[in-house]
Amino acid sequence: MSDTHHSYDQVRLHSFGDMLREQARSRPQHIALVEQDTRYTYAQLHHRINRLTHSLQQRGVTSGSRLLWLGQNSHRVLELLGAAARLGAIVCPANWRMTAAETVRTLNDFDPSIVFWQESEVGDIAREARTAARPGNAAWIQHDGSGEHSYEALISAGADEDDEARVNPDLPLLAIYTAAFDGAPMAALLSHTTLMLQGLMNTQSQLIAETSSYLVSGPMFHVGVMMGTLATILAGGRCVFVSRPDAQTLLQVIAAERVTHAFLVQPTVEQMRRLNQESRYDISSLFATPDMSDWRMPMVMPAGAPLVAKLGGYGQTEIGGLSVLLWLGGSGAGRPAPFIQVKILDEDGNETAPDTPGEIAVRGALVMNGYLGQAKENARRTRDGWHRTNDLGLRKADGSIVFVGPKTTMIKSGLENIYPAEVESCLRSHPAVADVCVIGVPDPTWSQNVKAVVVARPGAEVNADALIEHCRERIASYKKPKMVTFVDALPRNSAGGIDRAGVDAAHGGGNYPRVA
Amino acid sequence: MSDTHHSYDQVRLHSFGDMLREQARSRPQHIALVEQDTRYTYAQLHHRINRLTHSLQQRGVTSGSRLLWLGQNSHRVLELLGAAARLGAIVCPANWRMTAAETVRTLNDFDPSIVFWQESEVGDIAREARTAARPGNAAWIQHDGSGEHSYEALISAGADEDDEARVNPDLPLLAIYTAAFDGAPMAALLSHTTLMLQGLMNTQSQLIAETSSYLVSGPMFHVGVMMGTLATILAGGRCVFVSRPDAQTLLQVIAAERVTHAFLVQPTVEQMRRLNQESRYDISSLFATPDMSDWRMPMVMPAGAPLVAKLGGYGQTEIGGLSVLLWLGGSGAGRPAPFIQVKILDEDGNETAPDTPGEIAVRGALVMNGYLGQAKENARRTRDGWHRTNDLGLRKADGSIVFVGPKTTMIKSGLENIYPAEVESCLRSHPAVADVCVIGVPDPTWSQNVKAVVVARPGAEVNADALIEHCRERIASYKKPKMVTFVDALPRNSAGGIDRAGVDAAHGGGNYPRVA
Repeated sequence: MSDTHHSYDQVRLHSFGDMLREQARSRPQHIALVEQDTRYTYAQLHHRINRLTHSLQQRGVTSGSRLLWLGQNSHRVLELLGAAARLGAIVCPANWRMTAAETVRTLNDFDPSIVFWQESEVGDIAREARTAARPGNAAWIQHDGSGEHSYEALISAGADEDDEARVNPDLPLLAIYTAAFDGAPMAALLSHTTLMLQGLMNTQSQLIAETSSYLVSGPMFHVGVMMGTLATILAGGRCVFVSRPDAQTLLQVIAAERVTHAFLVQPTVEQMRRLNQESRYDISSLFATPDMSDWRMPMVMPAGAPLVAKLGGYGQTEIGGLSVLLWLGGSGAGRPAPFIQVKILDEDGNETAPDTPGEIAVRGALVMNGYLGQAKENARRTRDGWHRTNDLGLRKADGSIVFVGPKTTMIKSGLENIYPAEVESCLRSHPAVADVCVIGVPDPTWSQNVKAVVVARPGAEVNADALIEHCRERIASYKKPKMVTFVDALPRNSAGGIDRAGVDAAHGGGNYPRVA
Repeated sequence: MSDTHHSYDQVRLHSFGDMLREQARSRPQHIALVEQDTRYTYAQLHHRINRLTHSLQQRGVTSGSRLLWLGQNSHRVLELLGAAARLGAIVCPANWRMTAAETVRTLNDFDPSIVFWQESEVGDIAREARTAARPGNAAWIQHDGSGEHSYEALISAGADEDDEARVNPDLPLLAIYTAAFDGAPMAALLSHTTLMLQGLMNTQSQLIAETSSYLVSGPMFHVGVMMGTLATILAGGRCVFVSRPDAQTLLQVIAAERVTHAFLVQPTVEQMRRLNQESRYDISSLFATPDMSDWRMPMVMPAGAPLVAKLGGYGQTEIGGLSVLLWLGGSGAGRPAPFIQVKILDEDGNETAPDTPGEIAVRGALVMNGYLGQAKENARRTRDGWHRTNDLGLRKADGSIVFVGPKTTMIKSGLENIYPAEVESCLRSHPAVADVCVIGVPDPTWSQNVKAVVVARPGAEVNADALIEHCRERIASYKKPKMVTFVDALPRNSAGGIDRAGVDAAHGGGNYPRVA
């Protein structure tokens, strides 16, 4: 049969770069990217990617090279994805709220060929991290500057040509840091195919079309925001970027760009509501009711979208975001999206009986290519031939999936996942801390707040403020404890581990993430 | 990077068999297949596929093996696809209206390991073809019989186990004969991924969900019918099979199964309308208006479906069916579906200027794996690294595609493509025919009828009826000329070929397929 298939093998490849090429042909005059006064059509985007690709290539970027984005939301992240896609390279939009120490760790782990950094808001951290990171060969390009080392200089320097080189769409294209269960986050790698499949399914579930205008207001280092963004590009719609979700700016932009889709958290929406009480901004393109009472957190979309009727599901970055969906039917968190299989497995890799919790395991084209450079962890997590999610779930008799909770405790504050292990690891590095358990306590606005229950070393002088400041200097501010309680000892379970349920019960822990 | 990806490579595979496995877990009690008194849930379908897979394996079916279906529509075609998917084998639902001679040609070309044949309506042709075909090692299994060589015996004999073997979804799974431009049809091979991607897009464009009930009334050897069927399975809905579209049966089945989607041609709908004038059957699940005035040919679906608002597009079997879609925007036939690229190419493989016709060329994951056993044709058709469709089109300034017409003349009668070359080849085999040109003449019901313009050999005794009968015996009845005209000579163009436009003008040809 090889004679039959051979000549068509290359024809069938379809990479993220190919998708953008077709948009430039199919929708040349449609606006693709908007950011303040910048507006690029799909044809203009194509030419910018042509130039960027050649400049990156000249700087040695090739298949498997890694590009780190140390900045806030920008249309340039999309352009970098387009250029990286053509070269088989990988782009990581880093969390711009990281401390210098976390940024150093990210630089050392990701080992990028080029760092694209931002002066505004992030400049000091970037400079500090650059000095402290392991010496590498990374070039540093300032994306919001001008002059010879700027991003726009890179674009100007490149040739405006497209050689249409074929790239295997099963290669990784996007890296997102997540899953700091063991103290440090790892980079989950998502392939071209995963991003486009998940994008396609988002066009369906969120009703995203070429007439849509998507507000990239949530952070692009979050898989949910990134998937909404990519779905919009896949549909030939318009992405409107704001560097961060400032309520006043959002109102202006929604009115000006007739935004139809957005990613907004509750506190921001409350602010917007207050600011727009006199209806100064016409935001009817996004909110059908003037009091925004039709808003459902965190994804805003047209009323007819399947996700609006039944919002919810289960997902994680490692399976391309929300991949078990309530709108696909059943009770609980719903049913798996096309292109994946789900099993609930016990420790031996056997399926559990109905209604019996086990680890959620996933197989299929939405699963990541693995964590970057974590061969051992990747082997461990795929030991049954399935991706072990580290999340607990069960299957009901009707076949639908219920998300029970993270296998390892996780705290949810706003949209952020906070891993107690990471905060505890930071606190343990303080000389006065002998033992510690970090829990989440319920909060009406943020779901949970971080609380540290600490056993101090005998004779050590320490107080809550000192420990909070210790964390603030070392990990992203949202991860630091808001409260610290000192105890003589922590309850332990029979295996010798900390009895987290006991700590929760004694110190007000609760409201841990369950069904989304 | 290989260490990173290695352990996840196998995890990411998702074959058609994997999709069915997940349906059995996710929707065990949902009805999957209905045919007369037979009803199977997704769980039952899974067990039948388990058994069938083992039986096929025992008979030597393996990766690349070919299974030929010589019968009408049946739920068993779906089961065969499920079993073949697990083994990497290929299923071809043949056109059951073929003559014995055409069936022989199909048997010789497809070279199947097993032929599944049907006694009802097709038995005589099948027996005749079996005797005349090149001796092969094919086993012949009667699907509508009982006893030791029947299909159901094969199911009973197999072990009810699933070893969950991994199959590369880029392998071909479905073969559909088409494109008889040079006189004989070729088998276009479609991969697991193509079928599932196209299925997913059909769930979106036709609003097919787990609550849908799809009437498999059009022939399953047509890509459009097959894609609607597979979309329904992908969504976890119900497929209702009828062996052929008999109006009375259709009315009964639509009422009984609350059918929501169907594939119906105009003459059938007219018959149904007449038969149901007194509203004996409640067919409101499919037709919102009692007089069926909301019907649009040939796909019937809910009013809210994107395809209803803007029905039309461009496609061919070789690109997985309708893949340029009007509902995706633009004028003409619309814009390409996600996962393909389209270019309009001149003879040298360069893109033509806007509004300038050229050959439509397609690249991406919806393109076939090639024609079975046609290495030379496959190489010729992919010479630029693009699949050359043999169809002419152009791109408008807004980026949308217009289908201009087949590069080689084609006649459309009802849903069937009729290739003049095939009919002419048949007529030339008659001793009295010196030269011939087959054209399509407009028909209000069937779009076109086949007309042969014949130059008889000097001194030969022949009339129209004899030539029509000659064709009826050799090619499918719908391909035979309905009219024969005798002329002294055919007009020729400067290259020495027949001037088809001249023949059309002189003999009433017209209404050739253009924009769908």
